Amino acid sequence: MITVNENFLKLQAGYLFPEIARRVHDYRAEKPGVKLISLGIGDVTQPIAPAVIEAMKKAVVDMGTAAGFHGYGPEQGYDFLIEAIIENDYNTRGVKLDRSEIFISDGAKCDTANIQEIFGPANVIAVTDPVYPVYVDSNVMAGRTGGANENGQYDKIVYMPCTAENHFLPELPDRSVDIIYLCFPNNPTGTVATRQILSRWVDFARVTRAVILFDAAYEGFITEADIPHSIYEVKEAKEVAIEFRSFSKTAGFTGIRCAFTVVPKQLKAYTKNGEAIKINALWNRRHSTKFNGASYISQAGAAAVYTPEGKKQTRKIIDIYMGNAALIRRSLTELGYQVYGGVNAPYIWMKTPNKLKSWDFFDQLLRKANVVGTPGAGFGPAGEGYFRLSAFAKSDDVKEAMARFGNL
Amino acid sequence: MITVNENFLKLQAGYLFPEIARRVHDYRAEKPGVKLISLGIGDVTQPIAPAVIEAMKKAVVDMGTAAGFHGYGPEQGYDFLIEAIIENDYNTRGVKLDRSEIFISDGAKCDTANIQEIFGPANVIAVTDPVYPVYVDSNVMAGRTGGANENGQYDKIVYMPCTAENHFLPELPDRSVDIIYLCFPNNPTGTVATRQILSRWVDFARVTRAVILFDAAYEGFITEADIPHSIYEVKEAKEVAIEFRSFSKTAGFTGIRCAFTVVPKQLKAYTKNGEAIKINALWNRRHSTKFNGASYISQAGAAAVYTPEGKKQTRKIIDIYMGNAALIRRSLTELGYQVYGGVNAPYIWMKTPNKLKSWDFFDQLLRKANVVGTPGAGFGPAGEGYFRLSAFAKSDDVKEAMARFGNL
Repeated sequence: MITVNENFLKLQAGYLFPEIARRVHDYRAEKPGVKLISLGIGDVTQPIAPAVIEAMKKAVVDMGTAAGFHGYGPEQGYDFLIEAIIENDYNTRGVKLDRSEIFISDGAKCDTANIQEIFGPANVIAVTDPVYPVYVDSNVMAGRTGGANENGQYDKIVYMPCTAENHFLPELPDRSVDIIYLCFPNNPTGTVATRQILSRWVDFARVTRAVILFDAAYEGFITEADIPHSIYEVKEAKEVAIEFRSFSKTAGFTGIRCAFTVVPKQLKAYTKNGEAIKINALWNRRHSTKFNGASYISQAGAAAVYTPEGKKQTRKIIDIYMGNAALIRRSLTELGYQVYGGVNAPYIWMKTPNKLKSWDFFDQLLRKANVVGTPGAGFGPAGEGYFRLSAFAKSDDVKEAMARFGNL
Repeated sequence: MITVNENFLKLQAGYLFPEIARRVHDYRAEKPGVKLISLGIGDVTQPIAPAVIEAMKKAVVDMGTAAGFHGYGPEQGYDFLIEAIIENDYNTRGVKLDRSEIFISDGAKCDTANIQEIFGPANVIAVTDPVYPVYVDSNVMAGRTGGANENGQYDKIVYMPCTAENHFLPELPDRSVDIIYLCFPNNPTGTVATRQILSRWVDFARVTRAVILFDAAYEGFITEADIPHSIYEVKEAKEVAIEFRSFSKTAGFTGIRCAFTVVPKQLKAYTKNGEAIKINALWNRRHSTKFNGASYISQAGAAAVYTPEGKKQTRKIIDIYMGNAALIRRSLTELGYQVYGGVNAPYIWMKTPNKLKSWDFFDQLLRKANVVGTPGAGFGPAGEGYFRLSAFAKSDDVKEAMARFGNL
């Protein structure tokens, strides 16, 4: 008789975005014709840079010719893209990587969700609170947790609270952990980590033989010069860290699908008998057995992000989003709100006024300003009393939303 | 301390294609300048149909405009593609499906590898021998097997031999099994299953409460009118079968990446306590948690396969491959070889002459005819004494290869 993976039954209902949609839907029914502005979305809105469009057009045309047709590519991705990544994203930051350490994929969500497969079932995972839910859910499905409590937090996971009190930077765990998920620039708090902070994590992982899964999907939004773009800017990180990158937010690829994961050769995990195994070889096996390469068209487009024109044009798009972020920060600060993030990240994390609960502020903002945001409590209990605003909306909408905040 | 998933260590080295490459490489070094013809590849070679190219060009151009930009799509795929699939692939065969039963993905390899995640660890899997290795390897990684024996077969897996004696159609298992992988038209044997044979499997699965994972990636190559294209042409199959389809071989999408999986609402799996759970809901949760949708450009291209022009043009390409297959069948039959497949599938499965071992015939063919094929033993021990030829090469190369067989 076919049986289910009962770990799936521990998963909490995807509560946050469906609940937002329900409340927005009810409000629209109640007040038809009202113009709502959404600062809740995590998706980009600007069209793709012309240099990238041209490269993808050429790739499409090629696919229709005998000489230019591309069938299966390498599961790990084309060298033309891997080389552009190493040269532009890493060598410029003083990081040397071998081609075999880069794995092109169709998305960082897939990579951050799939990576846990290569590790044993008994590893203890540590995540921040608030957190991007995919890290947690993929481990629940794999059986590394118990059930959830009334806050939606799972037994056996070590949660590291991030609040204004600790500047949204998690403390080192006081218990033994094996897999540490870190995301900088952070979604949802917009926080970044200095080299010193990353060093502390790398040291901790080296001493405890843990692995850091470093999600740098928002790296392109860093504006301050001294903030590391890669965890490998801390040299010893190659011994303990896997890094995830994406073209989704930095080049608008949410609908095109291209990302990559860096798995250094130095990285090791252990058998129960203490034998050291190269994590790079394990991930290579997983990637080539269960994945068949990212689209040639997407990879051709991603490579164009690194051309001189592509760089200039994608920078301009990021500047639009960061202009929105700066406007939100400035406006809300002037209005007396406590705001965080938005300097090196496209997210502004604000304290709700008058210690309102996240969802109560959501309702107030929806009804009084017709602006939709994301309740911080939806990312974890430590997000209670906070609220996320995204800088990905159209600039005119952001301006209008800030005017409405002013009239609150 | 970080530990590995030790199930990965049970995996056998990917032996078949690296070993072919090694022998070809050595032969080339020995005889430089010789013109080798490969009938070994499983990848397509014809350029993409013009209607599909036009649709993808339009999709690319759209992505560069404010009005036409597409960010994250639904993880399950766009309705425009799902509706085209239901109408053209299923309604025409008398099969009704709901939109929520179709899950668009970036490839059937990923889907057939990932699907096992939603089932419990103790399920017994049954596969044919010879077999597409992804079914097996994904279950080894998930811990559903023991170690491998000297034939490369894993403990706890039920292997169903397919040879000329049983017309390459597996017998119903004589033991209790929970997950049955079937692939028709079959890779590597080129065999198809009649409605009667599929009915027998569906009945078996209903009685034993097993699930059939039906890989129909080569469905587009069926030429005989009475062969089912979908397992759901057997009505009760919706209670027991998941079906995998792909645009890779039928429309040349191996480099573009688009496929889909059908999970009917009637399908159930059970908890240890006997509670019935909808498999559709489990797969939906897995798909939306660990995947972020196929590329909009790929989906736009896939939808164009179903336009009148797209159908005509892709049919023409399939006819080229099936013309190659017919030529191989005819030529080898005339030369006195025993050949199978190649009528409803792009693979010809031949008996080696004089009961040669698969690898010995590989060497003979390489050295005497300068033709590269795939040793049947590489797909499993029951493939020993067989040899696979692919119809995906260019037609001139196929003609030349057949002439060389004639001179052997």
